[in-house]
Amino acid sequence: MKQVPIGVSARHIHLSERHIEQLFGSGYELKVLKELSQPGQYAAAETVAVAGPKGRFDKVRILGPARGKTQLEISRTDAFVVGLNPPVRESGKTEGTPGVQIIGPAGEVTVDEGVIVAARHIHFHTSDAERWGIKDKQLLTVKVSGERALIFEQVLARVSDQYALDMHIDTDEANAAGVKTGDMAEILL
Amino acid sequence: MKQVPIGVSARHIHLSERHIEQLFGSGYELKVLKELSQPGQYAAAETVAVAGPKGRFDKVRILGPARGKTQLEISRTDAFVVGLNPPVRESGKTEGTPGVQIIGPAGEVTVDEGVIVAARHIHFHTSDAERWGIKDKQLLTVKVSGERALIFEQVLARVSDQYALDMHIDTDEANAAGVKTGDMAEILL
Repeated sequence: MKQVPIGVSARHIHLSERHIEQLFGSGYELKVLKELSQPGQYAAAETVAVAGPKGRFDKVRILGPARGKTQLEISRTDAFVVGLNPPVRESGKTEGTPGVQIIGPAGEVTVDEGVIVAARHIHFHTSDAERWGIKDKQLLTVKVSGERALIFEQVLARVSDQYALDMHIDTDEANAAGVKTGDMAEILL
Repeated sequence: MKQVPIGVSARHIHLSERHIEQLFGSGYELKVLKELSQPGQYAAAETVAVAGPKGRFDKVRILGPARGKTQLEISRTDAFVVGLNPPVRESGKTEGTPGVQIIGPAGEVTVDEGVIVAARHIHFHTSDAERWGIKDKQLLTVKVSGERALIFEQVLARVSDQYALDMHIDTDEANAAGVKTGDMAEILL
């Protein structure tokens, strides 16, 4: 049995260094609220507001550290609320995605692109992937049990010696499957 | 191939005759906004507000005609917003479920129970069920294709000569699967 813990991603944002400074002030550094499952990644103490054509979310958690490109990850449900139509994308693949207005305590930024619905994926440490014969970028089929049992297809494998074993799904997917962070999923093939 | 059209249920409410009168006034009759896929069922022109401990929805569509018992069907995402923890239930099975406050133009009602997350299900006309060898209450496995392809297990079959063939899932399930009303699903077993 190839069992993987589930991590449910609520809406969140990754910010570039430049946007952190525009939103929070020159030289600002994010504070660590909580370490995440992936080594070096953390939920920051800070939040921002994001606004689309039809609505806004006032407190969107920033995940640190800073990235090369700013990226807002929301569920399809969230997307309807703010009035955007982001594609389902792998993290970092933001070409041609919708932009959004981001509001911080020291300023505002409007990005031309960067809003995605994150494609479900599993982070594998290289050793997990080797043990199970899984390759980076492979698409997997993963079962979740319980009263809303379902089988996710098209689950992207991401393999690195910087990763810890964790399956990332968004809140729509978690709610549809009736699971929460810490529940287990099983890779079928 | 056993193909079934998908109908996505947004949050909605069924009201008893008595509650319609309490909310809209004595002798009030709902107006038909739009016929639904199931014969005799309709989306009413009227909406109500519903309020839980943490939040409210101002415009919840009423589905008619009146039922014996009032029942609010919301997604898990909606449940977090209003601060309720309804179970996943088949329609009509409201014993022990949370209550909710319902606000109409002519009055308010607080019900002691009746809030559910609807269990995914397929309505079969008796002739469809016979042709495919499917029994009432059987649990089915149903595949949805596309970039968020997944296989729903625990899909309840409901068979009646009053039903039209339609698979009902909620907005969390539709968003997780990347489908909308009118898309097709395939019964695997």
